[in-house]
Amino acid sequence: MVPVMLCGLHARRVASHMQTSRLNVAMIGHGFIGRVHSNAFHQAAHFFQIPYELNLKVVCGRNRATLEAMASQWNWEEVATDWTQVVTRPDIQVVDIAVPNVLHAPIAISAAQAGKIVLCEKPLAASVQEAEQMAEAARRVPNLVWFNYRRVPAVGFAKRLLDEGRLGKIFHYRALYLNQSGNDPSKASGWRYRRAEAGSGVSGDLLSHVIDMATYLNGNIAELCATTHTFASGRDVDDAAIVMVRFKNGSVGSFEASRYGVGCSNRNVFEINGSQGMLRFDLEDMNRLEFFDATQPPNLRGTRKLLVTGPDQPYAENFWKPGHTIGYEHSFIATLGDFFTALSRQEVFRPSFGDGLAVQRVLERVHKSAETGAWIKCN
Amino acid sequence: MVPVMLCGLHARRVASHMQTSRLNVAMIGHGFIGRVHSNAFHQAAHFFQIPYELNLKVVCGRNRATLEAMASQWNWEEVATDWTQVVTRPDIQVVDIAVPNVLHAPIAISAAQAGKIVLCEKPLAASVQEAEQMAEAARRVPNLVWFNYRRVPAVGFAKRLLDEGRLGKIFHYRALYLNQSGNDPSKASGWRYRRAEAGSGVSGDLLSHVIDMATYLNGNIAELCATTHTFASGRDVDDAAIVMVRFKNGSVGSFEASRYGVGCSNRNVFEINGSQGMLRFDLEDMNRLEFFDATQPPNLRGTRKLLVTGPDQPYAENFWKPGHTIGYEHSFIATLGDFFTALSRQEVFRPSFGDGLAVQRVLERVHKSAETGAWIKCN
Amino acid sequence: MVPVMLCGLHARRVASHMQTSRLNVAMIGHGFIGRVHSNAFHQAAHFFQIPYELNLKVVCGRNRATLEAMASQWNWEEVATDWTQVVTRPDIQVVDIAVPNVLHAPIAISAAQAGKIVLCEKPLAASVQEAEQMAEAARRVPNLVWFNYRRVPAVGFAKRLLDEGRLGKIFHYRALYLNQSGNDPSKASGWRYRRAEAGSGVSGDLLSHVIDMATYLNGNIAELCATTHTFASGRDVDDAAIVMVRFKNGSVGSFEASRYGVGCSNRNVFEINGSQGMLRFDLEDMNRLEFFDATQPPNLRGTRKLLVTGPDQPYAENFWKPGHTIGYEHSFIATLGDFFTALSRQEVFRPSFGDGLAVQRVLERVHKSAETGAWIKCN
Amino acid sequence: MVPVMLCGLHARRVASHMQTSRLNVAMIGHGFIGRVHSNAFHQAAHFFQIPYELNLKVVCGRNRATLEAMASQWNWEEVATDWTQVVTRPDIQVVDIAVPNVLHAPIAISAAQAGKIVLCEKPLAASVQEAEQMAEAARRVPNLVWFNYRRVPAVGFAKRLLDEGRLGKIFHYRALYLNQSGNDPSKASGWRYRRAEAGSGVSGDLLSHVIDMATYLNGNIAELCATTHTFASGRDVDDAAIVMVRFKNGSVGSFEASRYGVGCSNRNVFEINGSQGMLRFDLEDMNRLEFFDATQPPNLRGTRKLLVTGPDQPYAENFWKPGHTIGYEHSFIATLGDFFTALSRQEVFRPSFGDGLAVQRVLERVHKSAETGAWIKCN
Repeated sequence: MVPVMLCGLHARRVASHMQTSRLNVAMIGHGFIGRVHSNAFHQAAHFFQIPYELNLKVVCGRNRATLEAMASQWNWEEVATDWTQVVTRPDIQVVDIAVPNVLHAPIAISAAQAGKIVLCEKPLAASVQEAEQMAEAARRVPNLVWFNYRRVPAVGFAKRLLDEGRLGKIFHYRALYLNQSGNDPSKASGWRYRRAEAGSGVSGDLLSHVIDMATYLNGNIAELCATTHTFASGRDVDDAAIVMVRFKNGSVGSFEASRYGVGCSNRNVFEINGSQGMLRFDLEDMNRLEFFDATQPPNLRGTRKLLVTGPDQPYAENFWKPGHTIGYEHSFIATLGDFFTALSRQEVFRPSFGDGLAVQRVLERVHKSAETGAWIKCN
Repeated sequence: MVPVMLCGLHARRVASHMQTSRLNVAMIGHGFIGRVHSNAFHQAAHFFQIPYELNLKVVCGRNRATLEAMASQWNWEEVATDWTQVVTRPDIQVVDIAVPNVLHAPIAISAAQAGKIVLCEKPLAASVQEAEQMAEAARRVPNLVWFNYRRVPAVGFAKRLLDEGRLGKIFHYRALYLNQSGNDPSKASGWRYRRAEAGSGVSGDLLSHVIDMATYLNGNIAELCATTHTFASGRDVDDAAIVMVRFKNGSVGSFEASRYGVGCSNRNVFEINGSQGMLRFDLEDMNRLEFFDATQPPNLRGTRKLLVTGPDQPYAENFWKPGHTIGYEHSFIATLGDFFTALSRQEVFRPSFGDGLAVQRVLERVHKSAETGAWIKCN
Repeated sequence: MVPVMLCGLHARRVASHMQTSRLNVAMIGHGFIGRVHSNAFHQAAHFFQIPYELNLKVVCGRNRATLEAMASQWNWEEVATDWTQVVTRPDIQVVDIAVPNVLHAPIAISAAQAGKIVLCEKPLAASVQEAEQMAEAARRVPNLVWFNYRRVPAVGFAKRLLDEGRLGKIFHYRALYLNQSGNDPSKASGWRYRRAEAGSGVSGDLLSHVIDMATYLNGNIAELCATTHTFASGRDVDDAAIVMVRFKNGSVGSFEASRYGVGCSNRNVFEINGSQGMLRFDLEDMNRLEFFDATQPPNLRGTRKLLVTGPDQPYAENFWKPGHTIGYEHSFIATLGDFFTALSRQEVFRPSFGDGLAVQRVLERVHKSAETGAWIKCN
Repeated sequence: MVPVMLCGLHARRVASHMQTSRLNVAMIGHGFIGRVHSNAFHQAAHFFQIPYELNLKVVCGRNRATLEAMASQWNWEEVATDWTQVVTRPDIQVVDIAVPNVLHAPIAISAAQAGKIVLCEKPLAASVQEAEQMAEAARRVPNLVWFNYRRVPAVGFAKRLLDEGRLGKIFHYRALYLNQSGNDPSKASGWRYRRAEAGSGVSGDLLSHVIDMATYLNGNIAELCATTHTFASGRDVDDAAIVMVRFKNGSVGSFEASRYGVGCSNRNVFEINGSQGMLRFDLEDMNRLEFFDATQPPNLRGTRKLLVTGPDQPYAENFWKPGHTIGYEHSFIATLGDFFTALSRQEVFRPSFGDGLAVQRVLERVHKSAETGAWIKCN
C-alpha cells in the first residue's frame, strides 16, 4: 500500500536528510506528451529538493519501434506493451498515464487498486461516470491530474495576487484557449479527433484546461450556458466551444476553446477584472503576467508586464535567475516538483483526481447546455 | 424637401466644379459628444473633397451657460434652448442629434418630417418601436447613425481584406468593448446610468457598437444567447453583457461589453479567425490592424501589425502621410466626409437609420435572451 | 512693432474676458507640412482658450495651382507667390515658414525685421551662421521653432515625471528616429535629398528632432562623437547618422537617425534609464508612455504602458476624454495652443529660435565629428 | 589524443547505430552558470541524437559545501577542489570551464594540452594575448566557447533568413544588451565587478555576446569607435559601453551594453534593417522573431511576430511541438547538441576558441577606442 510505504519514506527522510528513496516509474503512453513527462521525471529532482529518486523504469505502449526509440532517447530502462501487467508490477511505485482519454479510467483504476501513486493526463476521463470511479479508486493513493498550467510561474503569481486581494472584488473572468490544429488537414487526423478515443473534441482537450484554471483562480462556477460547434464535416467531436459563466463569487465571464483559432498556436489566455485591478496571461508568452493596479494614482495607471522569473515570485528558487526565462516543459517539471514535495510532507496535492472530476462535471454541463440551449446549474 | 434640394445641389456641382453649397447645421446637444461632432463639422471639408460648406449655425441645449461656452469655443453662430423650434427652422438643412437616447426619437422624427438631413447618435433609439418610427420617418431624407468606428481606417481596411476573401471561410468572430466607467463612482452618475434617459446601460452604450461592427464585418446574426449583469446596487441598467452568437455565414462567436472592465479605457476589440487568416483590432491602438496570413509559408506565418496610415489603405488620401497617425476624432470626420460625399453623388450611405434599427433589433433580442435564458433567432 | 501690439492685445484681453484679437497669418509654403500647419491654425482655438482669432489670411508659394488648391481646401483667404511682399504686409501679424530649409533664414529675418511673430519649421536653418542671424533678428519678436514633438502629451508627461525626479539619477538616454524614405526610389527625389535646398540630409530632417527632444528631457550635451553615412550613390546629403553622447548630467547615450530604417514608418523613440526607473516612447504609438517604476516592490516591477489621454496628464483638459486618442496633428495644435497662451501672458515660449540655434550648434558638431572621427565638446 | 579517440568513436558509431560512447565530463566551476551547464549535459542527449553518453563525472570548485550541494542536485559523480589534477585525469574526455574569466586561460590551456575536448565560458579570456594562447593550445582539440545565444531558435532563424538574402542589402545593425545588475547594491559585489577576476566589466560580460552575435549575423567589423563608462565610484570595471560600428558589408550600426539599464532584466536585442526587410529579436521574449518583409504589397507590410517553435525552423525537431515554447536553458542544450553532433561527424563547430579570440580582439579595440577617443580599424 502506498500510504504505508510513504510513511516509511517519510520516516527515512527525517532520519537522514541526505537520503533519497527510489521510486520506480511506469509510464503508459509514448506520444508527444509522453516525451514531455519523460523530461519532467528526469528534471524534477534537478530543480526541486525532493527526497525521491525518480527512476524511469518502464515505458509502455502499443508500438514497439516507437517504444524503443523513446526508451533510448529518454533513458527508460525497459519497454512493455501490456499495461495490465505493468501497473501491477510490485517494483513499480508510480504509474503515469499519457494515453488517449478513453484509456485513462481502466489504467488509473487498476493502478490505484494496486496501490500505486497515479498521475493521469487531462481530461481525467471521457465521462463523469468514469471520473467518479477513478476518483473513488484513487482515494487512498497519492494522485495527480496533469493540469500543468497551474504551475506556470506567472499563473502561480496571479493566484497569489488574487489571494492577497490585490484585485479587490472580481467582476469578470474571461478565458480563451485557441489553436489552429483543426484547420490543418495534416494535423486533424489523430485520436483527438475521434469521439471513440477522445470522448470529446476541443472541450476535453483545451476547454478542460480553461475550466480548471478558472476554478483555481476564480473559484467555483454557479451556472453556465454553452454552445459547441463542429466545422469539419464528418467529424464527431466538437471543434469549438463557447461558454457563458456565472461564478459563485458574483463575477461573470466567458470561456472559449477552439481548434479553428487560425493565427493562434497555443493561445491559452485569461483576463480578470476586479475593482482594484486587472490580470492577463497568455501561454504563448508564458514568462509574463500583465497587471493593472487600479490603486496607483490615476495618471500612473497602466498595464504592466511582469517578467515572472523572480525575485519573490513562484519557482524563483527552483529555476534560473531573474530575467532568465523558462518554457512549456517547466510547467510539468514544477507540477512533479510540487507533487513529490507534498508527498514527502504528507500534504494534499492539487490538482488531484478530485479536481479532474470537478472539471469533468463542468464539461458534462457544457455539453448538456449545448444540446438543450439552456443555462445549467453547477451543483 | 431635401431630396429636391439635393438634386439641385448635385446639378450645381456638375455645373461648376468649384462651387460649394452651404448647409446650415443645427446640433441638438452640448455634451462631450457634441464637442466631437462640432469638431467633425469643422474638419470634414478640410480632409474630404465635398461640395458643401458645413455651417455651424445653431447649437441647442438646456443649459445656457454651457451652450454659450460651446458656441464660443466651437464657433456656433447661435444658441437655442428649444429644439422643437430649431428643427423646423427653414434655414436649417442638417439636424444632428447628440442628446440622451430617449430624446433621439422625437427629435429625429420631427427633423425628418421637416425634411432635414438627420444625423443621430447611437444607439438609434431606446426601443425597437422608436427605432422603427425613426427609420420610417427618415425614409425620404438623407440620414446617418453615428456608428463612427466603421470609419476608423484600420477597420475599413479589415473590411476590405474580408471582402477580398483574404481570410477565407470565417470560423470565429469575437469582440469586446470594455471600459471602467461603472467602477468609478465619480463617473457613474450621468444619464447613461439611468434607464429613463438611456433606455439601457452598457448594451445600448457599448454593445451597440460591437453589434454594428460585427454586422458590418461579418454579416447578419442568425441567433444569439445572452446574459446581462448589474454590479452596482440600485442601478436600473445593465453594467455588463455577454452574448454568444451564431452568424448566418456559419461562423460562431461572442460579444462582451462592460463598464467594469477595470484596466481598459476604451477597449473596443474584434478578432476574426478564418481558414486563411486572422484579423485583430483594438480601438486603444486604432492606427493598427493585426493580420495573420495563413497563406504564407508555415515558418513565416506570424501576426503582423499594419500601421494603417497608407499607402493604399482607407483614407490614405484624406489624412496625413504614411506613418503619421490619427486619433479618435478622425473616425467622426471620416464619417461626415463619406456621408456628404455620398450625398453629393446621390449614393446610399451606411450606417443609416436602417442600420441603427437593425442594431436595435439585436439589442432587443439580447435583453429578451438575458431574461429568458434561451437562444433567440434574429429575424 | 509686435511687442507693442502684444501689450495692446494683452490689455484688451484683461479689459474684456470674452474679447479676442484677430491675428492675420501668412504661411510661406504649400507642401505637406503646410497642410499640417493650416490644420493647426484652424484647430488651436478649438482646443485651447486663447484670446486670439487666428485668421488664415494668405498662403504663399511658387506654384499657383497648388496654392489655390490649398487655399480652397484649407480656407486661406488669399494666395501669393512673392514672400518678400507678404512678410512685410502691414495687415499680417504672424508669419509661418514651411519651406525648404535654405529659405528659412531670409524669410524669418525679413519677417522678424518687419516686427512679425515668426514661426519656423525645423531645422531652424541650414547652418549655425544662419541660425545665429535668425535668432538675433527674432530677439524682439515672439518666435517659435516647430519642434512639435515636445507637445505630444506622452512626451510632456515624460518631462513631468523626470522633473519630479521619478527616475532618480539618469544613467542612459538613447534615441532613434527612423523612417524608410531613403530606401524608396519614389520618395527619395524631393528637396530633402539635395544639399543645396536642405542643407543636410537625415541629420537636419530627423536627427534635429532627436537632439531637441534629448535636450528638452535630459539637458545639455557635454560632448559627442558621430558618424554619418550616405547609402545612395550620387546623393550629397547624409542618409544615416549615429552619435554617441555624454550629457552634462553625467548620463551617456546614443542617437541614431536614418532614412534606411526599413520597417519603420515614423519611429521616433527615446528610452531613459535612471536609478529609479525607465521611460520609453515611440511616436508610432504616440498616445502611450512606457514607465518602469523601480521603487515598486521587486516582484511587482514591470514596464507599464500608460495611455496618456488623461486624467492629470498634459493636455487632458484640451483634447478628448481619457481613453480617446489623438494623432500626429495634435502635436502641432498643442504647440500653437501653448505658444499663443504664452503670448497672451507675455511669457517666454520654448522651443524658440534660441532652441533652434542650440540644435543647429549640435548638428554642426555632429558633422564636424563625422568628418574628423573625433569627440567634440559642445560649448 | 582526442582527435584519434574521436576517430575511434566515429568508427564505432558507424559500426553500430545504437552504440553510444561515454564521454566523462569534468566541469570547473560551481556557480549559477555551472548549474546551467550541468542541466545542458543532462539534457543534450534527450533532445539531440548524439552518439555519446555525457557522463557528469566530476565537478570542481573551491568551496566544498557548495560543490557537494551541486553534485547532489545535479548528479555529478565526484567533487574535486584542485582543477590542475582534474584536467589531466585520464578518465576525463571533456573539460568544461565555468569560472571567473581570469582563470579561463590556465585551465583551458592545461586541458587542451592534455588532449581534452574543451568548452569555455565567454568571454574566452581576459585579454587578447591569453585568448591567442588558448586558441593556439586548442588547435588540435575540439573546442567551444559558450556564446550560447547563437543557438536560440529565433536567432538561428534570423541567420537563415539573412543567409537566404531575405533582407537584401543590409543598411543597419543595432544591438543592445542591458540589465540592471549594476544599479542593485545587493548584486554588484561579485567577481564580475572586479577587474582582477573579470578582466573587464560589462564589455566582457554582455558586450561580448553582442559582438559575437553581430559577427555571426552581419559579418566582420571594419572599424569601430567606442566609449565606456563607470557609474559606481570605486569600481574598476566598465559599467556601460557604447560602440559605433562600420561593418565590412557596408552597413553601419551601434552596440550598447550596460548594467545600468534599469527596467531591463536580460534585454539582449538586435535589429537589422535591409533593403528588403527588418529583423528584430529580444532575449526577454526569446521564442519570437520579428520580421518585416518589404517585398509584401505596400498596404500589407507590417512587422510580424514569428513564434519560432517550428515548423521548418531551427530545432523544431529537437524540442517540443509548434507553439510550445522553450527557455533560456535550451540555448545551452542546443549548443551542446550541435557541438557533439559536429564532433560525431568530424565537422567544424562554431563558435570555437577562434571565434572567442575574434570577439576578444574586438573588445580590445573597444577599450582602446574608449581610451583614445578615436576610430580603430579591426584587422
